[in-house]
Amino acid sequence: MANQPGLITLTTDFGYKDPFVGIMKGVILKLNPMATIVDITHGISPHNIKEAAFTIGMSHSFFSAKTIHVVIVDPGVGSNRRPIIVRTDHHYFIGPDNGVFSLIYGSKSETLGVTHITAEHYFLSQIGQTFHGRDIFAPVAAWLTKGVETAKFGDMITDYVTLPFPSVSMPNKTTIEGEVIYVDRFGNAITNIKAEELNAIYSINPEAKLKIVTKGKQTELKNYYSEVTDKGLYSLISSAGNLELFVYRGNASALFEIKVGDIVGVMLAPPS
Amino acid sequence: MANQPGLITLTTDFGYKDPFVGIMKGVILKLNPMATIVDITHGISPHNIKEAAFTIGMSHSFFSAKTIHVVIVDPGVGSNRRPIIVRTDHHYFIGPDNGVFSLIYGSKSETLGVTHITAEHYFLSQIGQTFHGRDIFAPVAAWLTKGVETAKFGDMITDYVTLPFPSVSMPNKTTIEGEVIYVDRFGNAITNIKAEELNAIYSINPEAKLKIVTKGKQTELKNYYSEVTDKGLYSLISSAGNLELFVYRGNASALFEIKVGDIVGVMLAPPS
Amino acid sequence: MANQPGLITLTTDFGYKDPFVGIMKGVILKLNPMATIVDITHGISPHNIKEAAFTIGMSHSFFSAKTIHVVIVDPGVGSNRRPIIVRTDHHYFIGPDNGVFSLIYGSKSETLGVTHITAEHYFLSQIGQTFHGRDIFAPVAAWLTKGVETAKFGDMITDYVTLPFPSVSMPNKTTIEGEVIYVDRFGNAITNIKAEELNAIYSINPEAKLKIVTKGKQTELKNYYSEVTDKGLYSLISSAGNLELFVYRGNASALFEIKVGDIVGVMLAPPS
Repeated sequence: MANQPGLITLTTDFGYKDPFVGIMKGVILKLNPMATIVDITHGISPHNIKEAAFTIGMSHSFFSAKTIHVVIVDPGVGSNRRPIIVRTDHHYFIGPDNGVFSLIYGSKSETLGVTHITAEHYFLSQIGQTFHGRDIFAPVAAWLTKGVETAKFGDMITDYVTLPFPSVSMPNKTTIEGEVIYVDRFGNAITNIKAEELNAIYSINPEAKLKIVTKGKQTELKNYYSEVTDKGLYSLISSAGNLELFVYRGNASALFEIKVGDIVGVMLAPPS
Repeated sequence: MANQPGLITLTTDFGYKDPFVGIMKGVILKLNPMATIVDITHGISPHNIKEAAFTIGMSHSFFSAKTIHVVIVDPGVGSNRRPIIVRTDHHYFIGPDNGVFSLIYGSKSETLGVTHITAEHYFLSQIGQTFHGRDIFAPVAAWLTKGVETAKFGDMITDYVTLPFPSVSMPNKTTIEGEVIYVDRFGNAITNIKAEELNAIYSINPEAKLKIVTKGKQTELKNYYSEVTDKGLYSLISSAGNLELFVYRGNASALFEIKVGDIVGVMLAPPS
Repeated sequence: MANQPGLITLTTDFGYKDPFVGIMKGVILKLNPMATIVDITHGISPHNIKEAAFTIGMSHSFFSAKTIHVVIVDPGVGSNRRPIIVRTDHHYFIGPDNGVFSLIYGSKSETLGVTHITAEHYFLSQIGQTFHGRDIFAPVAAWLTKGVETAKFGDMITDYVTLPFPSVSMPNKTTIEGEVIYVDRFGNAITNIKAEELNAIYSINPEAKLKIVTKGKQTELKNYYSEVTDKGLYSLISSAGNLELFVYRGNASALFEIKVGDIVGVMLAPPS
């Protein structure tokens, strides 16, 4: 197989202290020196599969077609959990079959194929039971960039693992109940309530106002951060299209003790 | 516009936990797969525009001509603060017009042009109001590497924002008063006093000694860190040519409670 | 010298806050825009030469032949400690002569040559005494990728610095005494006891069991992390082939107060 350009992204919980990520890059570039490697993040909280699922879910679509996304949060490494390749309309995803691709399975791809990686001749020659990123996932990603077809790596499976993600509920036509699903480095708290859902209840009475409530506190919906100047809790639509709670030039999570799992309610309040 | 090699650097306060930087790289490489991207740092303190200005000020000159430096510390994102391209003799700079390029405006470039970016056809198709790094700055940087001229992105402006930076004062011919402007990861405290300024007062009486004082403590000027072996506070000329306070194999900032804004005085003391 | 592709890795204690690493990359790419640069880590504890030695020792072999590994943990920068190039069968290493390459000298390379870098025309034009990463190591690495031979950079030396690393002792044929030499971001504690050493005492009586003891606690040897589900202390063979102490989905170092230097004993216990 000839070397050719190809884009590989890495998303892991390996952090920035140890050489694990660098070692994976060495393995990839040894097999294909023409590959381009982009770090999405290595700062996933240790063993937090859902955080990784959310991270790759909000990131992958900004990359070019045929990008190979390697995602490794893998507490079950070495056990019989399967290494897999997920293929969608536009991208490839490589990682452990532990639910890390749950939001990819749920995306709008028309085609979806999941391959159980078993073809050991594409692995590093001596594989261990603690670092499949180095021994399996990195070399398989490199071979994919070299043009090896997914069918060569193993058989298709349909019983891949999907983790439940918190869904939004609507107790009535003008109320949405969701929750915080991610807190970013600025302390902004991103919820699972989408802009379209806000629009749907808002369209019932465009004269009315949206009341957004979390932890007994009511917040106003703004368009951008610096629309306010005080240190109160406000909300806006995040860059990924979700309802987000923020404090202007402050850390909403720290100041208002908001964390993943906190309930957020949205109500349509008639004009007063 | 043809793809061609081009170097883009990134300096942000996005940190290393979230996928924001990775997403920007995806946007750039989708538009120009031949671009090379270098991270200067993503560890700027959240919303600290001056720290970013200082960081790009001390870094840019080490990159090759025509490098495109994207700098994003942008608490005003989504407001009417302008996205701009700054062009100097050697480089391009892209970011918000909030003073982040203050030290570039003050540098010795003979040519200087600032363009207000308004040409929306170079933006991502759906732009939001919270992540212009993804929606405006990354694509504009990519289009620049593909050879689009700065004039195509919008009109020139001259009323760009410049932030005041602390300047050194000289109460008399043998005294300099400056301050700490940056503390690095080792705890070294870098001041705004330049080596040339030290040389100027020193040349008045080369027999005399320089007394460097901060927080009531006097330090001696050394040539390099390991010239001393005890844990006292010393000073030397930093890699950027500034007076710097240090502790050998220790953290000067932590051990002597030195922080940004602390006053540092230099006096010429006659030989005793 | 013509530009040509070449792989350079970086391992430093520069951290992720300051622009030092970005500046080094600017220097390299200015000299050779075709170089590929991989970060192994910049999270080495400040001034910890042994940690850097261990990190590059466990990483380098995964990179392709002729890779140039730049390692900078350099408290003696500016003093008369020498800048060196180490050449082995497969790789080049560049950094200060302070013991950071101790484990490279001890590796199985059949050829080994150490060059004292003195040829100043390969340095940045104005070199300082605090940042040889920028002024000496980065440009020398770039020139190496362009095909300059090591002999051009200076003379060979044989009195390079080697640091003592803790070695394993065997008080008798069925007992090994070693120690913890590295704790990774997950809190896993890696020891200096190699899998081969475990196999050697195990082969004496394959019916017997290995007892692994640290801090008065006995642990069982497992094959992979998720073989257990409780939060006890267990051990396995790490990805680098060393005995490693771990807690499944937990931080062994924090939970059991295990740190670098702690003694770990292995005994062959007859079947009960």
